[in-house]
Amino acid sequence: MSDSGYVHGYSLREAARLADQADTLAELLHHDTRFPAGSKVLECGCGNGAQTIHLAASSPEAEIVSVDISPEHLARAKARIEAAGYGNVEFQIADVFDLPFAEESFDHVFVCYVLEHVTGPERALECLRRVLKPGGSITAIEGDHGSWYCHPTTPEAERTVACQVEIQASHGGDALIGRRLFPLLCGAGFHTVHVSPRLVYVDDSRPDLIEGFSKNTFIAMVEGVREQALELGLIDEASWDKGIADMYKATGPGGTFCYTFFKGTALK
Amino acid sequence: MSDSGYVHGYSLREAARLADQADTLAELLHHDTRFPAGSKVLECGCGNGAQTIHLAASSPEAEIVSVDISPEHLARAKARIEAAGYGNVEFQIADVFDLPFAEESFDHVFVCYVLEHVTGPERALECLRRVLKPGGSITAIEGDHGSWYCHPTTPEAERTVACQVEIQASHGGDALIGRRLFPLLCGAGFHTVHVSPRLVYVDDSRPDLIEGFSKNTFIAMVEGVREQALELGLIDEASWDKGIADMYKATGPGGTFCYTFFKGTALK
Repeated sequence: MSDSGYVHGYSLREAARLADQADTLAELLHHDTRFPAGSKVLECGCGNGAQTIHLAASSPEAEIVSVDISPEHLARAKARIEAAGYGNVEFQIADVFDLPFAEESFDHVFVCYVLEHVTGPERALECLRRVLKPGGSITAIEGDHGSWYCHPTTPEAERTVACQVEIQASHGGDALIGRRLFPLLCGAGFHTVHVSPRLVYVDDSRPDLIEGFSKNTFIAMVEGVREQALELGLIDEASWDKGIADMYKATGPGGTFCYTFFKGTALK
Repeated sequence: MSDSGYVHGYSLREAARLADQADTLAELLHHDTRFPAGSKVLECGCGNGAQTIHLAASSPEAEIVSVDISPEHLARAKARIEAAGYGNVEFQIADVFDLPFAEESFDHVFVCYVLEHVTGPERALECLRRVLKPGGSITAIEGDHGSWYCHPTTPEAERTVACQVEIQASHGGDALIGRRLFPLLCGAGFHTVHVSPRLVYVDDSRPDLIEGFSKNTFIAMVEGVREQALELGLIDEASWDKGIADMYKATGPGGTFCYTFFKGTALK
């Protein structure tokens, strides 16, 4: 993946969105991830540290190495972890396809929202497998935009989300990767593969998720590709604006919102 | 809902499908439903008794009254419950919109895969609310065909499922009702509404679900509307056959399958 090809971009608004997402979903996605004292953990594609902060908190005595291809992201991640006072994370620039680590260097690998953006996710998993010790584990978390739906829904709302999927595909990624996590992990040579879906369901009784997930995570993400969608001619401006407005309507009274993340674990 | 308008029909194959579905999904959908000894429970739209058998087993000392609009269905349900040796269920012909019970007759109401088929699900809920005692509970379970997706997927596979949704809509039903359960229950005057999604995720590690859910429940259901889809001109024969074949491919090695049911509970 080239730095400039990252579909969500590197803006501060995007950084805030990723932080919102990570905090709201932390319990759902991270509650069952704990790495033992003294174990060496590679977090690949840490971005601005939205997940790193949860890894550092959940596994305080593990030795975490967080890498990312973007110096801007890495600097923010480092600042965030230092501000929170954690001392168990080292940061390093690295490309998943060219990891600067010897074979069998790590006890555990953690990768979140990365495979969806790379061309050749199975090859990326093979690269991660190489630096893992025999018997070591990988934990991979991905979304699947095809799992999204809302009520009330409209063709325009569905089209805006489809635009995001198509744009991500045009960058070589796959926004529908969650459903593929099991065969990808198997295909990369891992065994004891287990994938568990994590469904986020939002209705009027869950105002924290309306704000933290539906609006500030999901709709904000889709809104982020507006210019690309219009430039590529994937949708006209009026339809786009109606689609986004319709999605916001589904965050109002009587509306509902659904999305599923997939968490996979496997052994080398 | 008129008897003849029931989208899935009344064939024996359909009866087997509904039984398969109920057994495979029983734990997922029923594990948290228990009615106390002596309580009066109305199961509305019991069909051939696929859910009744689980209600009877889970609440052995409740007094269950199971009603359905179809004499054929009701006869099968009665035979099934008698064969299993349960004595806690009475059967009666009834239409949800014209229930032959006095106001405030029941402590609990249970309704499963019924609201999706009726024209006016909110009105149906109001009719059920009428026969419920103040403080009594309703439990409603529905699917949402828009929550289905698979890997690998194809436009034809997605189109066959969309045909089912359109056919159900043409009968006045709504195959996307799961996502609406929360606002429907609120709109019908219930309070303390809680809706919990129940996601069925199937990959190679879950052969029982490949057979019991993906093939014998979901694909079998879609296959059941083949003639209607072709007669209505919703799809051509070649596309239909490819779509079904593609869905079966997703039940093979490396394939995955997802579907979400919604279970709502609320009080009068």
